[in-house]
Amino acid sequence: MNMNREKLTISIIVFENFEPLDVFGPVEVFGKYEQVEMRFISMDGGLVKARTGVEVNTSKWNIENFEDILLVPGGQGTRMLVNNEDFISLLRKFIDKSEYCLSVCTGSALLAKTGALNGITATSNKRAMEWVTSVGADVNWKKKARWCKDGKYYTSSGVSAGIDMALSFMADLYGKNLAENIANQIEYIWNSNSNDDPFA
Amino acid sequence: MNMNREKLTISIIVFENFEPLDVFGPVEVFGKYEQVEMRFISMDGGLVKARTGVEVNTSKWNIENFEDILLVPGGQGTRMLVNNEDFISLLRKFIDKSEYCLSVCTGSALLAKTGALNGITATSNKRAMEWVTSVGADVNWKKKARWCKDGKYYTSSGVSAGIDMALSFMADLYGKNLAENIANQIEYIWNSNSNDDPFA
Repeated sequence: MNMNREKLTISIIVFENFEPLDVFGPVEVFGKYEQVEMRFISMDGGLVKARTGVEVNTSKWNIENFEDILLVPGGQGTRMLVNNEDFISLLRKFIDKSEYCLSVCTGSALLAKTGALNGITATSNKRAMEWVTSVGADVNWKKKARWCKDGKYYTSSGVSAGIDMALSFMADLYGKNLAENIANQIEYIWNSNSNDDPFA
Repeated sequence: MNMNREKLTISIIVFENFEPLDVFGPVEVFGKYEQVEMRFISMDGGLVKARTGVEVNTSKWNIENFEDILLVPGGQGTRMLVNNEDFISLLRKFIDKSEYCLSVCTGSALLAKTGALNGITATSNKRAMEWVTSVGADVNWKKKARWCKDGKYYTSSGVSAGIDMALSFMADLYGKNLAENIANQIEYIWNSNSNDDPFA
């Protein structure tokens, strides 16, 4: 808990075939906090296509000017990326430099592949658990959890679970009132209990 | 109900300062249907910046090749757009040509400004109702509704309500099983009752 933390800088790593709501659920939540800066970054910079075809604009990722918080979405694109050694090794540098590291859905498979989650309690999309577990054999995967928090790591279940996790992350940083206020603004029924996982 | 409708073509009109989840909630839902094509369009084409700063790539809108379904998000950008006569008059042409016309949040103010919603039952973001009502005095605004369906118009309440509306739209077109299947895939607790509006 860090109630004195005024500004948030959140870097969101995107890649071909990322799952759009994995990104834009948390982005919606964080965007309701006044002192936030969100940076969309990717390996090569430029336009990156999500599943469903929409293209978002990104900057080329740069570990030198990276700071603060990392958000890693999931999606079909993760299946190829876990085998991209350049991506995985630079991702590890971002993870190590981050103050908090958040993932949604199969984004946790990318984190796991770097080895950063070894010994950490984490979760992922419930329909992809077999694959995710195979990627990170030394992670303490939790099969029933809306999201997990372990140290600086927040990992959520599939897609919409990222919204609940993002609200809870904001509650941890700034208190439950602020998170409830954001949930009301976006007319979202916040599931604030990480153990309440109706999709496990 | 149109159970024989195989393909969906959905055009999403975006503009500076649109609300990201208004778009990407429904996009996530529609994107889980196999035979869908989604087109991001805007007045000028090119990159369009959402609230929170992310830029999405668009095509210049073209009434000639528009077909099928229109989705209009809300957000702060609507406050200026209602006064843009060029935008409003061309929007009306898209609305008239659409088979279904959907809006999220204050997107319904844009629809209302064209006059297309006169006599139609519609809703909007509950925190913006006073402004929205002033934009469309002849609309039958419903103050307590997660979303409204009236003829070809589906209008939802704020932000997250667009996800519930999009699922219900899919249920109307393809049956409740398909919508439930999508909700499960994105691990979302679907509020399928349009009258259940906890934010009214």
